[in-house]
Amino acid sequence: MYHSYRKEVSPVITNINANMVRRVHRLRRREERDRTGLYYIEGMRFVDQAITHGVRIETLVVSRPLLSHPYAQRLLKRQERLGTSIVDVSPEILQRISLVDDPQGIGAIVHQRWERLSDLQIGDELCWLAHDFVRSPGNLGTMLRTAEAVGAAGMILLDRETDPYEPAAVRATMGALFAQRFVRATRDEFIQWKRRVHAFLVGTSPTASRDYSEVVYRRPTVLLMGEERKGLPQELQALCDEMVSIPMVGKSDSLNLAIATSILLYEVFNQRRKTTVAGKEEA
Amino acid sequence: MYHSYRKEVSPVITNINANMVRRVHRLRRREERDRTGLYYIEGMRFVDQAITHGVRIETLVVSRPLLSHPYAQRLLKRQERLGTSIVDVSPEILQRISLVDDPQGIGAIVHQRWERLSDLQIGDELCWLAHDFVRSPGNLGTMLRTAEAVGAAGMILLDRETDPYEPAAVRATMGALFAQRFVRATRDEFIQWKRRVHAFLVGTSPTASRDYSEVVYRRPTVLLMGEERKGLPQELQALCDEMVSIPMVGKSDSLNLAIATSILLYEVFNQRRKTTVAGKEEA
Repeated sequence: MYHSYRKEVSPVITNINANMVRRVHRLRRREERDRTGLYYIEGMRFVDQAITHGVRIETLVVSRPLLSHPYAQRLLKRQERLGTSIVDVSPEILQRISLVDDPQGIGAIVHQRWERLSDLQIGDELCWLAHDFVRSPGNLGTMLRTAEAVGAAGMILLDRETDPYEPAAVRATMGALFAQRFVRATRDEFIQWKRRVHAFLVGTSPTASRDYSEVVYRRPTVLLMGEERKGLPQELQALCDEMVSIPMVGKSDSLNLAIATSILLYEVFNQRRKTTVAGKEEA
Repeated sequence: MYHSYRKEVSPVITNINANMVRRVHRLRRREERDRTGLYYIEGMRFVDQAITHGVRIETLVVSRPLLSHPYAQRLLKRQERLGTSIVDVSPEILQRISLVDDPQGIGAIVHQRWERLSDLQIGDELCWLAHDFVRSPGNLGTMLRTAEAVGAAGMILLDRETDPYEPAAVRATMGALFAQRFVRATRDEFIQWKRRVHAFLVGTSPTASRDYSEVVYRRPTVLLMGEERKGLPQELQALCDEMVSIPMVGKSDSLNLAIATSILLYEVFNQRRKTTVAGKEEA
């Protein structure tokens, strides 16, 4: 029988020093993710979403005694039939390589996806996000989750540090990550691209006088968000077609970055969907 | 000289087993916070904001070699004059009791503030938040930060678990915590109070057919938010004057709770401030 034969040649890994275990561990580090172009995802929902969105799986990591859910078992069978590389580990090993409480018997080493700004065409997506620097991976992931919910295309990163494939960022997306597109670019490349595609670039600053809700976000909109503490540097502000602020009445001087970004995303989303409805009613 | 005399009778604490150090450590635990009605805050911004909002300080904890900022030094002098209980600790001890990277030479054990729902009057605040259960302390703190930014009054907690004085929640508020009011109540008390003050209770559910942006949030509005995974229980949904959802177009089934709450808060805020402006223009 094929199945038992397969098990004989690849026994269940129970050794914490096994090569595969060390590889997953190393992927927690940024340098290793950069070097390999890979990252590690955990749990049914994430693996399922990754497959749905066509993310290339390098190795599926399973612990069969923990794979109780029938849906997970079907997913595994399908991947076995497709010839995906599958590694069996003991429950203890899966727990040890896991950063979540309940890895649900399944994880995967998968390929990162990056696009080049010069190849990026603007389609009928709601908008793009652009970030100068995002300090908190949790915030980054949360923004991607909202971006996916409203139909934003993805994120243009203007620094070299911010990494959407950092484990805490991945986790906070709740799987929305795989539906988002990623581009890393220099400021110069960004400036050229903005001109070429005639992007409507909206930057945010707590000191901008224009109320975010009074701007018409015409296509193609790019929302350029500043860093949590320092905001947008002058050079990038100068590039924006509009600088907006989100009004506040309390003593706080700022909102959480994921909150501010999400409020802007929903403003763009609400304007578009209401225009569409109005357009349909007129027709 | 008073100052040097004072230093003689209360030497700088350098011992990790000192009573005060153990007390701060214990306040990380929920039972200890409940038992004492105290919590610990860290850093200049937090201590300063707490004092500004009249939070009662039980003990100010300082490490003078780290207290480099002139503003912090003035704050300390003022508290010395006021007779606040002050404990000096070594930089190593302050680092050890600290949960943040840079405690900036100052922390404080302070008193929690709670109000009773039966005493709660509705004033001219924007709205109140009510929560059944908040799983993530970071989300809880982030919501309080947005709540303060739009002029919401505070939070009514309908469970016994959620604790706004949990260290990660406190930190995520960025100091907005001290401007917010807190009430813990049973569902029965909440139902009675809602009827008495004629609150306009708006609940959220991903399956509600009413679009959140199509509701007029009349005073006094209370936004009732469900738990991250399970949403609002049927019993609480039945109590609401409106059930609303936040539209989404992606494959996600929900938004992060702090994001959803903040989007609702800004909708209420935008409606009110625009009505006010319109009212003024008419006058």
